[in-house]
Amino acid sequence: MTINRRKSKEEVIEALHGVASEMHDKMSKGNPPTMTLPVRSKTNISFDKKLGVYKYGKSKTIRDATALGSARQLLRALHISEFVEGMITDGKTSTLREMYYISEGWGNGKFSTQNESNNLAEDLEIVTKCLREDFGLRPEEDGARIIGNITFEERNRRGDWMRINCRDGVGDSGYGVPYNVEMEKLRLVEEDIDFVMAIETGGMFDRLVENGFDEEARCALVHLKGQPARSTRRIMRRISEEWNKPILVFTDCDPWSFRIFASIAYGAIKTAHISEYLATKEATYLGITADDILAYDLPSDELTKQDLGALQAELSDPRFSTGWWQEQINLMQEIGKKAEQQSLAKYGLDFVTDTYLPEKLSALGLNY
Amino acid sequence: MTINRRKSKEEVIEALHGVASEMHDKMSKGNPPTMTLPVRSKTNISFDKKLGVYKYGKSKTIRDATALGSARQLLRALHISEFVEGMITDGKTSTLREMYYISEGWGNGKFSTQNESNNLAEDLEIVTKCLREDFGLRPEEDGARIIGNITFEERNRRGDWMRINCRDGVGDSGYGVPYNVEMEKLRLVEEDIDFVMAIETGGMFDRLVENGFDEEARCALVHLKGQPARSTRRIMRRISEEWNKPILVFTDCDPWSFRIFASIAYGAIKTAHISEYLATKEATYLGITADDILAYDLPSDELTKQDLGALQAELSDPRFSTGWWQEQINLMQEIGKKAEQQSLAKYGLDFVTDTYLPEKLSALGLNY
Repeated sequence: MTINRRKSKEEVIEALHGVASEMHDKMSKGNPPTMTLPVRSKTNISFDKKLGVYKYGKSKTIRDATALGSARQLLRALHISEFVEGMITDGKTSTLREMYYISEGWGNGKFSTQNESNNLAEDLEIVTKCLREDFGLRPEEDGARIIGNITFEERNRRGDWMRINCRDGVGDSGYGVPYNVEMEKLRLVEEDIDFVMAIETGGMFDRLVENGFDEEARCALVHLKGQPARSTRRIMRRISEEWNKPILVFTDCDPWSFRIFASIAYGAIKTAHISEYLATKEATYLGITADDILAYDLPSDELTKQDLGALQAELSDPRFSTGWWQEQINLMQEIGKKAEQQSLAKYGLDFVTDTYLPEKLSALGLNY
Repeated sequence: MTINRRKSKEEVIEALHGVASEMHDKMSKGNPPTMTLPVRSKTNISFDKKLGVYKYGKSKTIRDATALGSARQLLRALHISEFVEGMITDGKTSTLREMYYISEGWGNGKFSTQNESNNLAEDLEIVTKCLREDFGLRPEEDGARIIGNITFEERNRRGDWMRINCRDGVGDSGYGVPYNVEMEKLRLVEEDIDFVMAIETGGMFDRLVENGFDEEARCALVHLKGQPARSTRRIMRRISEEWNKPILVFTDCDPWSFRIFASIAYGAIKTAHISEYLATKEATYLGITADDILAYDLPSDELTKQDLGALQAELSDPRFSTGWWQEQINLMQEIGKKAEQQSLAKYGLDFVTDTYLPEKLSALGLNY
């Protein structure tokens, strides 16, 4: 599945009608209604070496109404289609949690758990080749914060385009990325930066802001807030594509942080159907590396059993198959240590901006 | 302890020097150095009925350097004083996590856990009658988001005052409250609202924003992000005091959400030394109430064993001693149910703004 361009409201509604049509066609021939979708298990997800991202394979599964569970899923899919169509017509959006509660009124189609409704929303993305954002379905979590000399136009509730400079027009907490960062909602209008630095923790983001690193190094700082939301990954992809800027990822040195990087660069299993849309292949892992723990003698913690298990799994994860990652992971296993970004404060509050980042950036050929 | 007004840089440094002076005085008389502070256990915290907030009692404890553990605490207090004085002089701030790592260079004063450094920072607040914010020590968590027709001036990194209207000058994610919301950083300059509505979940905050509730009901919406950060509680206190606006708290109906309300209105045990500074006695609990679960037949979940334990504890918590709270808690125990704010979506996306909130506000005498 390839998403080459975003769909109009009419196309989204048409795609949803397609789901109902498949069911209707079967029934009018006297057969039980069906819904066809890719098998959504790990066995049907593979790493597309050419594209450099996770993708679904060719295995399809057909849900039909001959079993109670499947019949209920089909009924729910129709209810969601109707609900989403109503929202699109009214210009509304809804959280996934609200949709879960709205299903109270769907009789046999009522969801038993939030997980069921989330998964079905993803199924519908796959079947219709639309995005959850096209449906107006929102997650609960906040998007990223951004600080730097870039200017967006965001369309507000009244439909007006509002111009916001992410350095001069925002307070200390920065520009809050909305859940929908598509063309119809957000425009990238002006920039005066050389690269983007995506940062895992709020503490380090605030440190770089306070130290004026965005101005000194001519970059935009993005606070990922842990595992980044879709909108965070998508906006970095857009900045990479539309402004042709390198994306550097600065996280803790632990196996979970490596996965944050991998989800930015190559996509994640849960969103394998839209990897081509969210992933930024050009993203580069800056640090903290296992090398850094040794080179800078950073305060560190012992790897836990869970950490070691996660590292071992990463050794055979195609996203970490390069020689560089294999070396880093092997080194971490060898020294048995992990370290946080903020551990650089061992050498004072300015060490990260005066010494660490300049040295790391210069190794990547980015001098400032 | 009463904080009547904020301290200047010089006063903060002087207060910190006071800590060193107490130690120095003892030593110059040939005695082991000491630090005197209130006992920080639950037994020494009481509910001040006149002020309506949690406060420390009169029990004092004296830390002296005759035991290794206490000696280390005194040493650390001196290191922190020096570190904080340096930050104040340089115009810097630091996360609590950074201070923890900076202690790597303090020899015997090095912290073993983050908890130790956090607690000692609180001790120093108590001893010096300053605030952690005066020291330039920041938490990791983000502050609230605000949307509504109010205008702040925030002093940015360059020292310039930036005017931000929280309705027209921000994107969908709203104005992000900085960690320091004191006069020297944030000014409340203009408002055109009748009240503030503080909301527990992001989903409900976004719902009220999308439905234009802030404009229709002439209010400012504040997203609490669960248990609210200090800066969130403080800014509501300032809005209540400086603009004389009612603060209405809209949360889930569960015992943990009741505690969110209580920390806003009466303070929390952990911040008992600054309750008078953070708490907004005039805050009102709007809902979801146990009554609402029945009156609106809301989708609900069974109370867990933990929930029941928390409710039982609240029955004897002075913050919930009013007849109204006792009734609500008893009713919850009786029906054995809890419900989320977003469960109102059972009746559609507009029910909360078209029906529920108007009915609740009108019961409070607030019609719009």
